[in-house]
Amino acid sequence: MHNIKLTIEYDGTKYCGWQKQRVKRFGFKKKKQKLAIQEAIESCIKKVLRQKVNIISSGRTDSGVHALKQVANFKTTSNIRPHKIKLALNGNLPRDIRISEAESVSLKFHSRYSAKSKVYRYIILNQDHKSPFWVNYSYWFKFPLDIRLMKKAASNLLGRNDFKAFCASGSSVEDTTRSIKRLSIANFNYFSCNAICIEIEADGFLYNMVRNIVGTLIEVGRGRFIPKDIKKIIESRDRSLAGPCVPAKGLFLIEVKY
Amino acid sequence: MHNIKLTIEYDGTKYCGWQKQRVKRFGFKKKKQKLAIQEAIESCIKKVLRQKVNIISSGRTDSGVHALKQVANFKTTSNIRPHKIKLALNGNLPRDIRISEAESVSLKFHSRYSAKSKVYRYIILNQDHKSPFWVNYSYWFKFPLDIRLMKKAASNLLGRNDFKAFCASGSSVEDTTRSIKRLSIANFNYFSCNAICIEIEADGFLYNMVRNIVGTLIEVGRGRFIPKDIKKIIESRDRSLAGPCVPAKGLFLIEVKY
Repeated sequence: MHNIKLTIEYDGTKYCGWQKQRVKRFGFKKKKQKLAIQEAIESCIKKVLRQKVNIISSGRTDSGVHALKQVANFKTTSNIRPHKIKLALNGNLPRDIRISEAESVSLKFHSRYSAKSKVYRYIILNQDHKSPFWVNYSYWFKFPLDIRLMKKAASNLLGRNDFKAFCASGSSVEDTTRSIKRLSIANFNYFSCNAICIEIEADGFLYNMVRNIVGTLIEVGRGRFIPKDIKKIIESRDRSLAGPCVPAKGLFLIEVKY
Repeated sequence: MHNIKLTIEYDGTKYCGWQKQRVKRFGFKKKKQKLAIQEAIESCIKKVLRQKVNIISSGRTDSGVHALKQVANFKTTSNIRPHKIKLALNGNLPRDIRISEAESVSLKFHSRYSAKSKVYRYIILNQDHKSPFWVNYSYWFKFPLDIRLMKKAASNLLGRNDFKAFCASGSSVEDTTRSIKRLSIANFNYFSCNAICIEIEADGFLYNMVRNIVGTLIEVGRGRFIPKDIKKIIESRDRSLAGPCVPAKGLFLIEVKY
C-alpha cells in the first residue's frame, strides 16, 4: 500500500468547491450541478490508476475559492511512480486544475489531521474601476481604504481567541477557539492594478472565518469601525456585530503546513 | 471639438485583436467572426455620446494579445466630461475591456504619431506543468532555460538596428530599422509559478517583432543558439535564421510613452 500526497493548484471559478454538494430535494427546476474539484481529480485518478480511490484534502474550499497549494492524499496499491502519476493526471485534468507535486509519504500521513497550520490570501481590488484580469480573482471595492487602520485592527486578531463572531451562523462546530499566527496586510501593484493583499495563517479556520475577518477589516479601512472595535467584536461572540462576508472569488488557499 | 485620450486595459483572449479583420471572400463555411476591441469600444462610445466616432490607437495588437495601458483617442463635439465618459464606458463595456483613464488633450495629440516609444512584456511560464491561472496569459515552455545566456543575447539586440530578421515575412514595411531602448529579462514568482518576464521598449515595433525576438531568446536559453549568434542573425536580415514566433497570449502592451 502506498500513500500518495498531491499538491494541487486550482482556479475555483467553475466548481461548486472542493467537495460535492448534496442536492436539495425540494423545488421543481433542477439546476445543473457544478462539478466538485475532488470529483474531477478522483475520476482522473480512476482513469490513470484503474482503481477507485478516495482522496482526503486538508479541508474543503467553497465554490469560487481558489488554491495555489491545496494538499490531498490517497492510498493505493498501484506501483506507478508518483512522478508518473503527476504527469498522467496533468494530461487528463481540466485546464483549471493542476498537480504541482506528487510524492509518496508515510502511511500515517493524513492531509487534514497532520496539518499544523494553513495560510489563506485574500485580494481586494481597491481602485475606481474593475480590472479585466482580476474579475474572478479579487473582490472589487472602489472606495478608498485606510490600510494603516486595517493593520492596527489586524493586530487585535492575533493569537488564541474565540472567533465565534467570525464564524458563519448555522455552523455546528462546538469549539470556536483558534490561533491566528500571522495576519499581514500589504498594498500590491501588479498588472497595473491597485490591490490590497491580506494573508492569514492559523492552526485552523472556522466556516467563512477568513471572509468574515476581511469583511470586518474593510469596515475598519472605510471608517465604519475603529481598530479597537475588534476586541469588542471578539468578546461579543456575536456574528451580527462583525462585518459582512466578502465574496469567495477573492480567496486563495496558498499553503498547508505540516 | 474635444480630443479625448483613453487609457485602456484588455484581456485579448476572446477578440480578433485591436482592429476588425477583413473577411476573406473565398471558402464555403463562414466562421463566426470574433469581435475587435476597437469595435467594442466604438459601439460603446456611440451609445454613451450618441455620436459615431473613429478611435485611433497607438497601434494594433494581434488576436490574443493583451494590454495593460493601450492608448487611443477620438474627437467629439460632445461636452460630457472625460471622467463621466470613463464611468459610462466602464458601465457598458464587456468585462474584459476597461478604461483606466480618460482625459481631454490637445487637438494635436495623435495616439499613434505622437508616441515616442512603446513597452511590451512577454511572459514565459517555465516549469514542468501548466498553471490554471496563467493559461491565457503566458507561453508554457517546460524545458529549463538559462536566463544568464538569454540576458547576454539580449544585450546584442539593444540600440539602433535593422530588425528585418525579426519581422514577420510578408510584411510590407520598407524601413525595418528600429531602436530598442531597453530589454530586461527577469525571473518572477507569483501565484506560486516560475516564470520569466521579458520587457522590451523601442521607438517602434515591426510586425511580430517582440514574439520573434522572444522565440529567438528561448533558442538561446535552451542552448540551440549561442548569444553571439544574435549579431549574425541581425546582419543576415533573414527571418528564417531567427527563432520561431511564440504565441500571442503571452504578450502584453504595457505602456505607450509620449
